[in-house]
Amino acid sequence: MGWTYEKAGISLAKHWEMHSIAREVIHELSNELGIGLVEGGFTRSINLGNYEVTLHTDGVGTKSMVAWSTGRLEVIGWDCVVGNVNDIACDGFSPMALTDYIAISSNDADAVGKVLRGIRDAALRVGAVLLGGETAIMPDLVNGIDVSCTVLGIRRVRAVGNAAPGDVVIGIESNGLHMNGYTLARKVLLGRYGVNDEICGDELGNWLLRPTAYYGDLLTKLYGRGLIKAAVHVTGGGFTKLRRAIGELGVELEVPEPPCIFRVIKEVGNVGWDEMYRVFNMGVGLMVLTSEGQVGEVTSVIREAGFNYWVLGKVTSSGGISILMPNGVKLRL
Amino acid sequence: MGWTYEKAGISLAKHWEMHSIAREVIHELSNELGIGLVEGGFTRSINLGNYEVTLHTDGVGTKSMVAWSTGRLEVIGWDCVVGNVNDIACDGFSPMALTDYIAISSNDADAVGKVLRGIRDAALRVGAVLLGGETAIMPDLVNGIDVSCTVLGIRRVRAVGNAAPGDVVIGIESNGLHMNGYTLARKVLLGRYGVNDEICGDELGNWLLRPTAYYGDLLTKLYGRGLIKAAVHVTGGGFTKLRRAIGELGVELEVPEPPCIFRVIKEVGNVGWDEMYRVFNMGVGLMVLTSEGQVGEVTSVIREAGFNYWVLGKVTSSGGISILMPNGVKLRL
Repeated sequence: MGWTYEKAGISLAKHWEMHSIAREVIHELSNELGIGLVEGGFTRSINLGNYEVTLHTDGVGTKSMVAWSTGRLEVIGWDCVVGNVNDIACDGFSPMALTDYIAISSNDADAVGKVLRGIRDAALRVGAVLLGGETAIMPDLVNGIDVSCTVLGIRRVRAVGNAAPGDVVIGIESNGLHMNGYTLARKVLLGRYGVNDEICGDELGNWLLRPTAYYGDLLTKLYGRGLIKAAVHVTGGGFTKLRRAIGELGVELEVPEPPCIFRVIKEVGNVGWDEMYRVFNMGVGLMVLTSEGQVGEVTSVIREAGFNYWVLGKVTSSGGISILMPNGVKLRL
Repeated sequence: MGWTYEKAGISLAKHWEMHSIAREVIHELSNELGIGLVEGGFTRSINLGNYEVTLHTDGVGTKSMVAWSTGRLEVIGWDCVVGNVNDIACDGFSPMALTDYIAISSNDADAVGKVLRGIRDAALRVGAVLLGGETAIMPDLVNGIDVSCTVLGIRRVRAVGNAAPGDVVIGIESNGLHMNGYTLARKVLLGRYGVNDEICGDELGNWLLRPTAYYGDLLTKLYGRGLIKAAVHVTGGGFTKLRRAIGELGVELEVPEPPCIFRVIKEVGNVGWDEMYRVFNMGVGLMVLTSEGQVGEVTSVIREAGFNYWVLGKVTSSGGISILMPNGVKLRL
């Protein structure tokens, strides 16, 4: 039997159940307090004077355990900021300010300093100030370091409309695993290899600690020019995140050959391809949805921004998420 | 030798070093990005249109470990919200919206549901909507559950001036330990007693899981009526948090008899009184600073809000934080 995310300790079903409990609380509060929420694919927002503002929180998951064991902690500071900003940018928000939360098992101020340097680099890149944060030293509760960030965003741009059958899905390259699926990836890869072992032309540690690609500027440009209808940051849940853009519609995608590191995880862990596409980004860190007539303009903006991309397929009226791999394998998520 | 916070695993010196690294990054970003920050005692804020907004993050510490082991998790959801709101209210901000971050060691949706119910109750109480959050299932990284929250606040009221020598310090009662000092309290108390053992007239578990008192409405009223110059939420660092209000000035305080649970921690753990006042709230969850002429009005507002209080002493021109206990013990923090 092969590895699954569940066998690695994480039940995606329970994770969605947690999300659904949170959603109930969110709507109950909004109703009780009489404060209307704007629901986006990745965000919820409220009006504040002339601004529409969102607040968004995400953590770097157990990528931090690889960072901790190698002492290369800057990347999780970077990821923490960029992961959040990519999420809110999918809904047309730009970051204004952020805070961080670091839980750490020891009095290691140097480690915290490295994380904060990564946060600084990313905050400069995305143009947001840091307004504060909390560092909790909790030797009994945390094994190593856990990092999450919260970003305050304001709406700068808006989607031109909703996704509809016939719209085109364009995938934009990721830079490695970004910050998702590490509990499975660590079990599989570090069960067989050391972080210094060479895999796919680089050390495993380098593969596991690549910084998350920053898509915020690209998305602001695409939305700002009225070119896209939706954007999907491919994070926890992998390709199933597409549901946030398509709802009850379907998509038929022909995906590119997954990068080497994902093929190694699949082979070493004997992980099913469907599980791989449910957990990892598989080389596609962002998808944007556009009408057929604007594919040329969208791809030229993506190219100018320096990203590789693939025209993956089309939105269909139903049928869920259907994937055809180059090796002929067909998947339905 | 007695217990200290350091012996329990937490170095306050290293904690302040982490804070100071963060402060450097914060100022570097503000300068580089040309975005001015308003510095408060507990918050930093920026201008957004006609609003002054702050973003603030805090977690519940290892109080969550007691909550986890007893299954009584609602209180940490409550504390997570109220702790943050008390902080920003000290600087005159009211909460608008919040997010939560939950790191959990198992696929326990029920536990997450309990935390979220506590968050809901607190959010209703403080009048803030929940805009989202993240639940990370990380069996390899977390032992139990870790909860932090981030609150978006807007300025509603402003202090009438800075603290000056001669100003009066008034202390307002806490409701148990709130959410600070648990790593030390757990080592000392749970090293000798079980959570069901009766101490100080109640079960230890009840003492350790009392909800944090909510001071937001009281502070808004006191600031709104122009009655106070500063407020200090007595959290991590205990009475040393007063420095945020007095800077280089001093205070001379005559504190009340510490509640029974703190005396037990002191005796069982053989903890120094100075360490106790550096780590715990010692029965005083909030302090407000006012000019001598307004003490009567301030205390009448506090009384109307249903809190017990003590006129603790006065601000001095120097001399640090000086404490006289009812048993004659004198401390200098």
